[in-house]
Amino acid sequence: MAVGVCYPAGFAAAAAGAGMKPAGDDVALLVSDRPAAAAGVFTRNRVAAAPVLVSRAQIAGGSARAVVTNSGLANACTGRRGLDDAWSMVAATADALGLPAGQVLVASTGVIGRPLPIDDVTAAIAAAAGRLDPDGGAAAAEAIRTTDAFAKTAAIEVELSAGSVRIGGMAKGAGMIRPDMATTLAQITTDAAVAPDALSALLRAAIDVSFNAISVDGCTSTNDCVFALANGASGTTVAGEEDVQTFGRALTAVASDLARQVVRDGEGTTRVCTFTVTGAGDDRAARTAARAVAENVLVKCAMHGGDPNWGRIVQAVGGALPGPVPLALDVSIEGIQVCSAGAAIPHDEHALEAAVQGPELEYEVTLAGSGAETEVFFSDLSYEYVRVNAEYTT
Amino acid sequence: MAVGVCYPAGFAAAAAGAGMKPAGDDVALLVSDRPAAAAGVFTRNRVAAAPVLVSRAQIAGGSARAVVTNSGLANACTGRRGLDDAWSMVAATADALGLPAGQVLVASTGVIGRPLPIDDVTAAIAAAAGRLDPDGGAAAAEAIRTTDAFAKTAAIEVELSAGSVRIGGMAKGAGMIRPDMATTLAQITTDAAVAPDALSALLRAAIDVSFNAISVDGCTSTNDCVFALANGASGTTVAGEEDVQTFGRALTAVASDLARQVVRDGEGTTRVCTFTVTGAGDDRAARTAARAVAENVLVKCAMHGGDPNWGRIVQAVGGALPGPVPLALDVSIEGIQVCSAGAAIPHDEHALEAAVQGPELEYEVTLAGSGAETEVFFSDLSYEYVRVNAEYTT
Repeated sequence: MAVGVCYPAGFAAAAAGAGMKPAGDDVALLVSDRPAAAAGVFTRNRVAAAPVLVSRAQIAGGSARAVVTNSGLANACTGRRGLDDAWSMVAATADALGLPAGQVLVASTGVIGRPLPIDDVTAAIAAAAGRLDPDGGAAAAEAIRTTDAFAKTAAIEVELSAGSVRIGGMAKGAGMIRPDMATTLAQITTDAAVAPDALSALLRAAIDVSFNAISVDGCTSTNDCVFALANGASGTTVAGEEDVQTFGRALTAVASDLARQVVRDGEGTTRVCTFTVTGAGDDRAARTAARAVAENVLVKCAMHGGDPNWGRIVQAVGGALPGPVPLALDVSIEGIQVCSAGAAIPHDEHALEAAVQGPELEYEVTLAGSGAETEVFFSDLSYEYVRVNAEYTT
Repeated sequence: MAVGVCYPAGFAAAAAGAGMKPAGDDVALLVSDRPAAAAGVFTRNRVAAAPVLVSRAQIAGGSARAVVTNSGLANACTGRRGLDDAWSMVAATADALGLPAGQVLVASTGVIGRPLPIDDVTAAIAAAAGRLDPDGGAAAAEAIRTTDAFAKTAAIEVELSAGSVRIGGMAKGAGMIRPDMATTLAQITTDAAVAPDALSALLRAAIDVSFNAISVDGCTSTNDCVFALANGASGTTVAGEEDVQTFGRALTAVASDLARQVVRDGEGTTRVCTFTVTGAGDDRAARTAARAVAENVLVKCAMHGGDPNWGRIVQAVGGALPGPVPLALDVSIEGIQVCSAGAAIPHDEHALEAAVQGPELEYEVTLAGSGAETEVFFSDLSYEYVRVNAEYTT
């Protein structure tokens, strides 16, 4: 079945194993049957992995035919050898597919500071190239997993004025996830024809409200990158303001679907929360407040315990926003207002406690000032998160 | 025995119960037998608790005779009533001790958003005033605990040119602890005579490298405040550059002792780490890098698991410092260098793994640039932290 990145026409994928993960395939190939406009968003972490440096250079031309991804090892902090290895992955993919090397993007995810078994990786690339399949989307999504509990794919069909186009995607990620950085690995494909500059602008806008508006643990990976490939195989071009907007909304929907799957799969996640901040006067303050709550370990522990301890929400917001004391803020949990202008107000404590036992929560904070509204989607902090991350490499 | 805040001459303390904690005393009085120079450092959290607002006003005069503290309830987000209650605590203390109300400081710690049982609190204040004792330092330190596993006191005697003086202190705190804010509750006493302005400057300098250089969970309380009282009962005045420096070092030693006890008592702490950042070129960058590691949940989980996953240290530093890619940094764990100029270097992995199993760890990061060096002291993140904080109010 043509799922995920293979849902749009003209894309094929495959996976193979190079022994970097304890079990299962760990090398994925994604290939377009024709040159595709390409856009990318990369981690802002200064300890950027070798594949990030290579793909940033490769994507500058705005066009790509293939993406090669490995999981298990991050190829980060690997020095000159790491750069050589990333270029070897590009060259092996180009050779196996008969493509110019400039048409290949590369991504890695996994443990930092260990070299790739590059001969095994290039052999796996050759093996994957021999079994490329328009039904390979699921296998590719599976191969890019590390600690992910499940593979993440998304797909949508959207009607434009000149015809319908498809958008598909896959992502990996469960830990080392924080907003406002191009977060985790994701690859999004479309059979629409889109100019590279327009694709890049639409991708950035989509990431801004999807991958940049989630948090699992407030940690920014050295390897994050999101690629978008638009190959035009549908015969439909995205042009005209209305179609651009329609396509942009669909691209955002796919990115948001993938990003929310990453949070739901956050290591040890038992509950997720949609947190809305309104009225901060400016976007930046609203975002600062939203992130402060989404990344606050006390908030996340209370959420895990089904504890309506809203004092931790006000503590997180008050600690994050510079300015005069006192901070007048309203707080609601699951629609029950608990704090008005910075002071507790009477509320049904039993109803509140019952309301926070479910798997999906909504918190709202309203600050003084009008206009800005921002939303962040985050997970709780569980025993299981600690266990997974206390035992990751050893 | 004259421990903690009662170690210097002229101070007495006592505790009593008002039912805010499940068991034990929850109201503490600390009293000087004569007016003392007073200095304070307060939380920068904009959701400042009522006692923070009241004590900030009270301490402006630079003099105090008494401090009243309650645990169990924070008197934060309690609106107008909370301010009235904080002033009532001041008034009850002044009445019971026959002092001017302007000579009383107040502090609270505990659950946010619930009103104080003010009649019970003022009754406890009266009861405590009736049993003030120069041996009451231990009881007071016990009464200010919330989730603390143990009471925290410190004491030192220091020789100045004109005679010896004593410094004592107590602190509470185990969660909601992060650096660069006046963190947690602490009260430091001395029988030296120190002018209020000098005391304030010395206190700020001491806090900067003690309470502001620790982290348990990166969360800043609404109630943090540190008070210092200097009553001159020793007959020795701190004057002259050399004595000021000697006294300042002793004050810093007491503050550091208390701050490190807070980290060791971090909720669920099983390991602690001294993390040194050198060579960042400027203090601010060094501090940013230090805090980023100390507050990084992946670093703290690896530490808990005895996992030498140093990739998380570079990820934390690289994610926190703005600037060009790549970031050249050296990393050592327990004296074993694992990363040079941003790339992994060969090292004895078995020795490294063995080295991180102990209760006290040392991490070092060296960045490009000379000069700045900063140190932060932090705890791991354990199952027990999650348990304690998932079950705090309910």
